[in-house]
Amino acid sequence: MKIVTYPLKGSWPMLCRRPASDYTDVDPVVREILGRIKTGGDSALRFFTEKYDGPIIRKFRVPAGEIAGSAALVAEELRSAILTAKENIAKFHRCQIPGTAVVETYPGVSCWQKSVPVETAGLYVPGGTAPLFSTVLMLAVPASLAGCSRIILCTPPEKDGRIDPAILFAASVSGVTDIFTAGGAQAIAAMAYGTESVPRVDKIFGPGNMYVTRAKEMIQLDGVPIDMPAGPSEVLVISDNTGNPSFIAADLLSQAEHGTDSQVLFLTDTPEMITAVKSEVENQLEDLPRKEIAAKSLENSMLILMRSIGECVGFSNFYAPEHLILATSDPASLSESIRNAGSVFLGKYSCESAGDYASGTNHTLPTGGFARNYSGVTTGSFMKTISFQEISGDGLRSLGPVIERLAEAEQLHGHRNAVTIRLNSLSNVRS
Amino acid sequence: MKIVTYPLKGSWPMLCRRPASDYTDVDPVVREILGRIKTGGDSALRFFTEKYDGPIIRKFRVPAGEIAGSAALVAEELRSAILTAKENIAKFHRCQIPGTAVVETYPGVSCWQKSVPVETAGLYVPGGTAPLFSTVLMLAVPASLAGCSRIILCTPPEKDGRIDPAILFAASVSGVTDIFTAGGAQAIAAMAYGTESVPRVDKIFGPGNMYVTRAKEMIQLDGVPIDMPAGPSEVLVISDNTGNPSFIAADLLSQAEHGTDSQVLFLTDTPEMITAVKSEVENQLEDLPRKEIAAKSLENSMLILMRSIGECVGFSNFYAPEHLILATSDPASLSESIRNAGSVFLGKYSCESAGDYASGTNHTLPTGGFARNYSGVTTGSFMKTISFQEISGDGLRSLGPVIERLAEAEQLHGHRNAVTIRLNSLSNVRS
Repeated sequence: MKIVTYPLKGSWPMLCRRPASDYTDVDPVVREILGRIKTGGDSALRFFTEKYDGPIIRKFRVPAGEIAGSAALVAEELRSAILTAKENIAKFHRCQIPGTAVVETYPGVSCWQKSVPVETAGLYVPGGTAPLFSTVLMLAVPASLAGCSRIILCTPPEKDGRIDPAILFAASVSGVTDIFTAGGAQAIAAMAYGTESVPRVDKIFGPGNMYVTRAKEMIQLDGVPIDMPAGPSEVLVISDNTGNPSFIAADLLSQAEHGTDSQVLFLTDTPEMITAVKSEVENQLEDLPRKEIAAKSLENSMLILMRSIGECVGFSNFYAPEHLILATSDPASLSESIRNAGSVFLGKYSCESAGDYASGTNHTLPTGGFARNYSGVTTGSFMKTISFQEISGDGLRSLGPVIERLAEAEQLHGHRNAVTIRLNSLSNVRS
Repeated sequence: MKIVTYPLKGSWPMLCRRPASDYTDVDPVVREILGRIKTGGDSALRFFTEKYDGPIIRKFRVPAGEIAGSAALVAEELRSAILTAKENIAKFHRCQIPGTAVVETYPGVSCWQKSVPVETAGLYVPGGTAPLFSTVLMLAVPASLAGCSRIILCTPPEKDGRIDPAILFAASVSGVTDIFTAGGAQAIAAMAYGTESVPRVDKIFGPGNMYVTRAKEMIQLDGVPIDMPAGPSEVLVISDNTGNPSFIAADLLSQAEHGTDSQVLFLTDTPEMITAVKSEVENQLEDLPRKEIAAKSLENSMLILMRSIGECVGFSNFYAPEHLILATSDPASLSESIRNAGSVFLGKYSCESAGDYASGTNHTLPTGGFARNYSGVTTGSFMKTISFQEISGDGLRSLGPVIERLAEAEQLHGHRNAVTIRLNSLSNVRS
């Protein structure tokens, strides 16, 4: 980890630059996959699945019997942990369903808005060295609470063509209605355009590698919305002299082990903390099974000494971290100043892995600085808003002339006439 | 207008197809504009502004004096109508700021989320035959209520290089901080990438022609979010035998006059209403200044006779109209069944132009079927959500083992260790 001491504000943009993502080689590949799935459907999906994942998948849909049988294949302790996590996620996400309040904006003019679920949600859960059942929960629980009538899940097969039972179990307890054995950009394309097997979805959610991310970004041009562009994971920890260096080091490493392109930052106003955290990171790194990955991502990472905790927060808002840990003496008041972050963890016992798995907040979060302008996944991400209005005769009598004047000034006489014709009829009624 | 009688469900997808948008010629032009603004900044912006709008703009920023002086150039009656509309829009959009509620998801585990404004909002207001000051209000009022610190407005110049005083006045009363004389795809590019004059914004909002729309869609690939893809305007009116044919005809025409590619649909269960509305449309069309435009868009439009009002609503949910008018005897209960629509108008006095201008709801709405998966602009569109959590020592004692088990099963030992190291320290404290 690089140590940076009292950086001038002019250097912040350079310090906030993420390890570069170069899509030059990725884009043409993704474009070809999108095009071929669009026209070729299942057979193209089968081709790319074999090419990238290995197995030849005859039926993409995972049979109901296999899903129902998954529980028996998952250790009881893990099942119960998954259910606890699911409950907590549900408790937090249930409160995010927006209510409907009627506002009388003008006498006789009532307006309200209502959130309605998108009909079909498409969830993507990436493959990897281990089954990411936690991502299943983070996407399916809010989709289900939002009320989506179909919740489609795509995830790549293992070498033997199967999907890990823990994934199937998590899907079965959190409301997923259809599971398909497909991964990568080809799965995103299948959900965006539909194939013989995979239904076309209304919106696509979930993390993935560069190919998945670019596929998600590109299908927006075909009118399919996505949760957010997602990139390598990152954490920023702020601490004063009250921080516990070994806790902080563990948090930095828990993020660094994600991938070689992850980035972790530690910011403090206390010089001694820099050395203490650095040496703890080095110690703990030794015992980590994913040591090589973590060591590589630590090369992209920094320990930064600032003039004050306030300046640390200023830098953090500029950096816009996916995860932000406030390991300071008064994190609550500090948290009021946070403008740009995906998820914030307050105090020394709020470790990031709690939010990754089980505290209830969502772990599908904007990375790479996108916390400046994107939200993480919420229940509202699976809904859209419809506005409503009801205007009484008296309401139109009073507001009508205003509308007529505005429509007139925009030279839209048809717009004006829709009011005038009603006002004339109202004055006939009155006379 | 084409009359369609009792269409079978199998024909709905065909009937719901919008007048085609063909981007084949548009995309390369837009791609070139984006690329040249990205590298050329102001000088490229000046080039394209001259090419597409005519005037050579020396300074893109509209001087403060010109903005301040705009009020005096707007008729008093129009100023007062703009202010009334602004008040109503503010009343409705003020209620959309989400609150913050703390949820204890597990003993000792508190989670909450907070909505925070994006820092810099970029608003686009298209040019045209008349100044669209209403769009200024619809975008700037919620941006300002959300708390965006900079609200940038781009709008194309008139032939003489100036911007209409009504636009400037609306901007000045609704919180716009910077106004730039630039339009089209080049203005979208300027806000997405920044130029010497135009600051880079965090999110881009507002309607526009095909070039503007495609530019907005494409800049998403560079990580700049947009409100929604917007296309030609549309309205769907549902009425039973209690509807007033002349009101309905006026509503259909108010939408048809927008552009030749607009589409208007009338659905009813009453055969007599089809003929009555058709003849009223033909009558009223004669007196419309934008008669030619409206007549052309009526060619894309339909009067559809259905078996029941329930079937009308079913079709409407399938079509997902931008605007939906329920001119039936009991619109309130009917509105409960609406799943896909931008904005809904209940009853015979709720004409669409009320929502376009002054009732308080937003007129920046998803078109072309996008109401299935996109929301119209709300105050929340200018904000992002940040989640927070605080876990006590006791909270981690009880939830920690669950997190450890889940992290272990995903083979993320660093994640588990961040918990273990804390649990160990807690048990040392206890012993």
